[in-house]
Amino acid sequence: MPRPVLLYAQSGGVTAVINATASAVLTEARAHGVRVLAAHNGILGALREELFDTSKETAAAVRALAHTPGGAFGSCRYKLKSLQEDRAKYERLLEVLRAHDVRWFLYNGGNDSADTANKVSKLAVEFGYPLTCIGVPKTVDNDLVVTDCCPGFGSAAKYTAVSVREASLDVAAMADTSTKVFVYEAMGRHAGWLAAAAGLAGDGPDTAPHLILFPERPYDEAGFLARVQQVVDRVGYCVVVASEGIRAADGGFVADAGGGKDSFGHTQLGGVASYLAGRVKDRLGLKVHWTLPDYLQRSARHIASQTDLDQAIAVGRAAVGYALEGRNAVMPAIIRTSDAPYRWKIEPAPLDRIANREKTMPKGFIRRDGYGITAAARRYLEPLIRGEAYPPYGRDGLPKYVALKNTPVAKKLPAWEG
Amino acid sequence: MPRPVLLYAQSGGVTAVINATASAVLTEARAHGVRVLAAHNGILGALREELFDTSKETAAAVRALAHTPGGAFGSCRYKLKSLQEDRAKYERLLEVLRAHDVRWFLYNGGNDSADTANKVSKLAVEFGYPLTCIGVPKTVDNDLVVTDCCPGFGSAAKYTAVSVREASLDVAAMADTSTKVFVYEAMGRHAGWLAAAAGLAGDGPDTAPHLILFPERPYDEAGFLARVQQVVDRVGYCVVVASEGIRAADGGFVADAGGGKDSFGHTQLGGVASYLAGRVKDRLGLKVHWTLPDYLQRSARHIASQTDLDQAIAVGRAAVGYALEGRNAVMPAIIRTSDAPYRWKIEPAPLDRIANREKTMPKGFIRRDGYGITAAARRYLEPLIRGEAYPPYGRDGLPKYVALKNTPVAKKLPAWEG
Repeated sequence: MPRPVLLYAQSGGVTAVINATASAVLTEARAHGVRVLAAHNGILGALREELFDTSKETAAAVRALAHTPGGAFGSCRYKLKSLQEDRAKYERLLEVLRAHDVRWFLYNGGNDSADTANKVSKLAVEFGYPLTCIGVPKTVDNDLVVTDCCPGFGSAAKYTAVSVREASLDVAAMADTSTKVFVYEAMGRHAGWLAAAAGLAGDGPDTAPHLILFPERPYDEAGFLARVQQVVDRVGYCVVVASEGIRAADGGFVADAGGGKDSFGHTQLGGVASYLAGRVKDRLGLKVHWTLPDYLQRSARHIASQTDLDQAIAVGRAAVGYALEGRNAVMPAIIRTSDAPYRWKIEPAPLDRIANREKTMPKGFIRRDGYGITAAARRYLEPLIRGEAYPPYGRDGLPKYVALKNTPVAKKLPAWEG
Repeated sequence: MPRPVLLYAQSGGVTAVINATASAVLTEARAHGVRVLAAHNGILGALREELFDTSKETAAAVRALAHTPGGAFGSCRYKLKSLQEDRAKYERLLEVLRAHDVRWFLYNGGNDSADTANKVSKLAVEFGYPLTCIGVPKTVDNDLVVTDCCPGFGSAAKYTAVSVREASLDVAAMADTSTKVFVYEAMGRHAGWLAAAAGLAGDGPDTAPHLILFPERPYDEAGFLARVQQVVDRVGYCVVVASEGIRAADGGFVADAGGGKDSFGHTQLGGVASYLAGRVKDRLGLKVHWTLPDYLQRSARHIASQTDLDQAIAVGRAAVGYALEGRNAVMPAIIRTSDAPYRWKIEPAPLDRIANREKTMPKGFIRRDGYGITAAARRYLEPLIRGEAYPPYGRDGLPKYVALKNTPVAKKLPAWEG
């Protein structure tokens, strides 16, 4: 008789440590004798019945997964709508789960994934199908509610703070005859968490980064340019960190000024630094450089935070534990019990409280003038980037990242007509 | 009686390890009882008589310098012209050197700096002023002749290869429903060394990076786009690495298509990835992301190569040795004696042979189709990124980079009317 199965899927933008969560899920499940299937490309793989048999992976590969960035089984940007609108898809999902004896479904992602896991669990109840659904947190955007922070954020935050500190030393050395203004573009469409993390690189108004632009505050060009000029006059150069999602007072994305739309009709972001650099050049006449780290910031496993890695592993382990205990429709949340010393624990939080909500920066984390972080933000952020969780390197000077076998499971159902 | 003095200056774009060279210069000079002054902002500090007394720095600070990126005394982009054209400046320089009993002048930079050090040494001979001038190599562009490689390059190369490997895992995981093409822009205005280093991240036509664009080969849009489409069809996604300096068949910088000029009338580069991404989107209709690491790639001390660090220290130490031996107008060059095992030594090379020349990628390093590196390139590049020379980190999760005191030396001359 086949053993009951746990299905694990990754969702949304991947991070430096989502595979560490996957590694912990596999390790913990194996310890309990549970068979784990993984969906290829997130929920789409579940709908398409494209599943991988993780029992084919060696113990060494599962261990190496914990230090490998990206999403080892593939992830997806695919949001299921309401049970009414997308009922056929939810039903197909249950059909696939049933066909493979899946009793536990772990969905590793952000707000949308928590919502999907929640809806799947509701439908299973309705159908009388015995299924435990667990949301597992992950996002560099750090915008999930209830949990104190999100696995993936700490490592991206460490990358951001370290990179800004390093580039600032470069700019400082060259400013006399070269670049006077440097603009760093951080991810964060609606919440300024990563931009805020850059603030850890400095410790006063005259240390870089000198100005941070948050999506939580309207972008005021005249005020911004005046401050850039003031910093250059006082310090000799100015390092700016801008969140990709900053908006003008009318609510439009600043990036749209140079903008465009992506294939889904979404605003194609990524042009904020370039835009601001152009304004600085044209209006202030200062030599300017900018950087757009883009995916580098969320895949930089080489500079992962130990705190982040520990938490990514802890939520994976807890998720399996909750699943096996039958705690349906919850997410392992990270609860901070103390700032100094930094202490945290994992507790189950109902998906109902998490799905489709978004946590922006609290007012008290943004300096009154709007261009920097407060001591409270620093207390919150600093423990999250602590510790260096280096991957092992080969003789070739490159990190030893693992590629899984990803052995397909034989399909049992007709093809999905999605 | 004051001790004779060694003057050290940094020039051009700084690197992750130029301060390691500075640290070695100070350490070696101290061991020989030689007093070291450092010019503020390179040759400009020498002209302006803005000198720092490095004897005020603690031994701990000098040690920490070896793991601190940027340019600790400031650098500059300032090229002295010929002895005829800029005679007054060269004479002012000698005047400053004489006023401070400078007997040894170490100029740490690229082609231009080798040229300046060479010219200063010639004028000193003409004036009968006893001065030994040494060029000390440094450049992430790796374009100095004679020396096998340049300190600063190996660390930027390691950053490039690691970052491309990491981001490629991210793109691979998301390609089914999101980004299909990712473009990474590498520094290198005239030589494709850093773009080539990205090639170390993969090991076949179907592993990322799939396409590399070198400034040594004319950019052919139709051919490029056809290959992008082929790779996407075959692999599911395509990672492109483009050198900032790629040019169309007519010789114009591709970056100029979206371009502009900097304050010196130079082409303002940095827009190649953005431009290529736009072409891929408009012509192929594929979802595309791009990254412009800019200064991050040359200041990333957190992922420095041990080989590079060793060589940066070795050239600094050798430069002091050559100076004290009176070997005038030379540069410590890195001579490779074996690929496997990788072996190298330092030898003096005449500045006459180095000044104002530029080493581009040999033909045999670029694959025949023009879009990748050869086994020979791999043999050359791989040892240069070997080993991880991590800086120490604080409890705050950030590297412990040092800020020197930079105590000014009292001026002895009237202000420079440059």
